[in-house]
Amino acid sequence: MNESSHPLSVAVLGGTGREGKGLAYRWAKAGYRVLVGSRSADRARAAAQDLRTMLGGGAHVEGLSNQEAAQRAEIVAVTVPYAAHRETLESVKEFVQGKLLIDVTVPIVPPKVTRVQMPPAGSAAQEAQQILGAGLEVAAAFQNISHEHLLRDQDIECDVLVTGTSQQARARTLKLVEAAGLAGWDAGPLENSVVLEGLTSVLIHINRQYGSTHAGIKITGVHKT
Amino acid sequence: MNESSHPLSVAVLGGTGREGKGLAYRWAKAGYRVLVGSRSADRARAAAQDLRTMLGGGAHVEGLSNQEAAQRAEIVAVTVPYAAHRETLESVKEFVQGKLLIDVTVPIVPPKVTRVQMPPAGSAAQEAQQILGAGLEVAAAFQNISHEHLLRDQDIECDVLVTGTSQQARARTLKLVEAAGLAGWDAGPLENSVVLEGLTSVLIHINRQYGSTHAGIKITGVHKT
Repeated sequence: MNESSHPLSVAVLGGTGREGKGLAYRWAKAGYRVLVGSRSADRARAAAQDLRTMLGGGAHVEGLSNQEAAQRAEIVAVTVPYAAHRETLESVKEFVQGKLLIDVTVPIVPPKVTRVQMPPAGSAAQEAQQILGAGLEVAAAFQNISHEHLLRDQDIECDVLVTGTSQQARARTLKLVEAAGLAGWDAGPLENSVVLEGLTSVLIHINRQYGSTHAGIKITGVHKT
Repeated sequence: MNESSHPLSVAVLGGTGREGKGLAYRWAKAGYRVLVGSRSADRARAAAQDLRTMLGGGAHVEGLSNQEAAQRAEIVAVTVPYAAHRETLESVKEFVQGKLLIDVTVPIVPPKVTRVQMPPAGSAAQEAQQILGAGLEVAAAFQNISHEHLLRDQDIECDVLVTGTSQQARARTLKLVEAAGLAGWDAGPLENSVVLEGLTSVLIHINRQYGSTHAGIKITGVHKT
């Protein structure tokens, strides 16, 4: 899992939420140093304590404010609801420059959660880049994964499409996908994030239409070498 | 396959192209009356003759101008390259009112075919509705299916996501998906077409990235009743 000789550190902003907590769990389990971030450092510390209890000794999970988590991590994942997306990014802008930011946000606008509604930037991930500027790499991933599955040690029957501002950004993100126990695919430039984010509305629609709860996707017809 | 007592008629505008010809083949094989349309009625007649030869006696395939095909059909599928999308739709506008139009178009803008680039309307299918007005139903489907597979009698390992202006429009389109031998899913309102159309660029990117030629998708975690 290392990119260099030490365990890589990953901040999970909004890591007290269900999706973020699930990713934090999987990454800490894989040996990453996980910095759970929240607007409230107290809530982040409580979530980190929960995760350490689940994971047992040896796991590195700390709870911090979003700002401190972003500042201390090498890679920063954003797992906040879309309503908190802009504010969260603006609050960590100075701390993420030169790093890799992985945006997990789905720009769902209740009540029409089964209808694709993208922000003017084209997608939440492109909006993140607009807010944060060109001084960092941005990737998008994990939009279609059910948070309920992440916190359990069971196989997840849904692939993860990864977009990003460079091949290197996508490759680094794909390592985190694998570390989370998932199958990932390089899905191209950040402009393609609209597909990943929009697919969440499509899958929610399919769940309602067909009476299911965990619709996902798999890429077919490709054998990874 | 019938919605009423007679075989349903389906126009395939741009049916001399590879995708359109494949769909025409599958639908005629399933017993639909297929009207192959082209800007050139001569080319349409030649394509229809090819298909009749492939299909043998009993298949109903006619070649016509796009206008005449649209006028005589109950359902109209559009399978033209994006560069001919607007012009083709404007040329049949008066003949498709009150009908169901199924847009197969992917708004791919060469040379950047691996990058999602949607028209201002949001997607090609939404653009079709803008051009044609509110006096007809519009659906989108078949964007991710390899044309090479349609003209062969082999199973296609790629599901078809279907969006549309109403549940009825999607249900009618899903019947044509099944008639083509494919597994289809109701993917929600026409606004969700950006996912279907954009997914084509993602799949082309995956093909290039992983050295494959027929990347597709399957919906997982749902058991159709």
